[in-house]
Amino acid sequence: MATEIERKFLLANGNWRTKVVTSIKIIQGYLSRDETTVRIRKSGNQAWLTIKGPSQGISRLEYEYAIPPADADQMLMTLCDDQLIEKTRHLVPVDALTWEIDEFHGRHHGLIVAELELPHEHTAFERPDWLGQEVSSDPRYRNSYLASNPFSGNP
Amino acid sequence: MATEIERKFLLANGNWRTKVVTSIKIIQGYLSRDETTVRIRKSGNQAWLTIKGPSQGISRLEYEYAIPPADADQMLMTLCDDQLIEKTRHLVPVDALTWEIDEFHGRHHGLIVAELELPHEHTAFERPDWLGQEVSSDPRYRNSYLASNPFSGNP
Repeated sequence: MATEIERKFLLANGNWRTKVVTSIKIIQGYLSRDETTVRIRKSGNQAWLTIKGPSQGISRLEYEYAIPPADADQMLMTLCDDQLIEKTRHLVPVDALTWEIDEFHGRHHGLIVAELELPHEHTAFERPDWLGQEVSSDPRYRNSYLASNPFSGNP
Repeated sequence: MATEIERKFLLANGNWRTKVVTSIKIIQGYLSRDETTVRIRKSGNQAWLTIKGPSQGISRLEYEYAIPPADADQMLMTLCDDQLIEKTRHLVPVDALTWEIDEFHGRHHGLIVAELELPHEHTAFERPDWLGQEVSSDPRYRNSYLASNPFSGNP
């Protein structure tokens, strides 16, 4: 168990692209998208089941377990309502922290969101010039919401 | 992953009690109780997260993963809506198969249900004299239903 503390931003420009050190493809779906979410995620030949509790500000309880990739494949195909999210996660280190910049594909093409996991709610962090509007508390940018609501352009 | 094929019965009498070889205490709760259920179960110092897909007759897809007992404790206390199920599971071997007889406690006191997992839907099995009415397809006897619906006496 861990507490996930995460801030989330839109992107002001594409300057982050030259700073990417790693990019990974992710496909994920949800077994439950209530206040508590149950997510199946697959990346390459690894897979995880992740439970996140209700949001308390920018914090949520999070429990993550590695599961057999074949189980994930089956659950994504049969139990996730065809409402899958596909994205490429780009890792961009800034200072001692690493931004995760998610570029969505398919139904959510055009959506790019930068996320930063913090050790504490009030941890200070550098704001690179490519950082746009903060959307940490905007439920429309939750992946569990996007799963059933195609993206229709940044505001 | 496995397919769970299970038949479920009420009890006609208490003759099964002298045949019990093992009894274990179980506490469980649900992160999701939609068609697909996500269950947290703890028994002794072991815990599991179990996903069951929609029922197809008496069969369901089932995925079960061992998880740290401390995670289970926390999820049961914080994410399961206080709608926990407590029961004692009695194991009763009959022929080559083992019946699981669940005796519910707390809000469901008085409810006793016998379950038999079968390798195939049409596997034949002996019906002991203590076996009562079959309720395999009655949703009122699903644990996920009982979680939010206190038992009010066998029919």
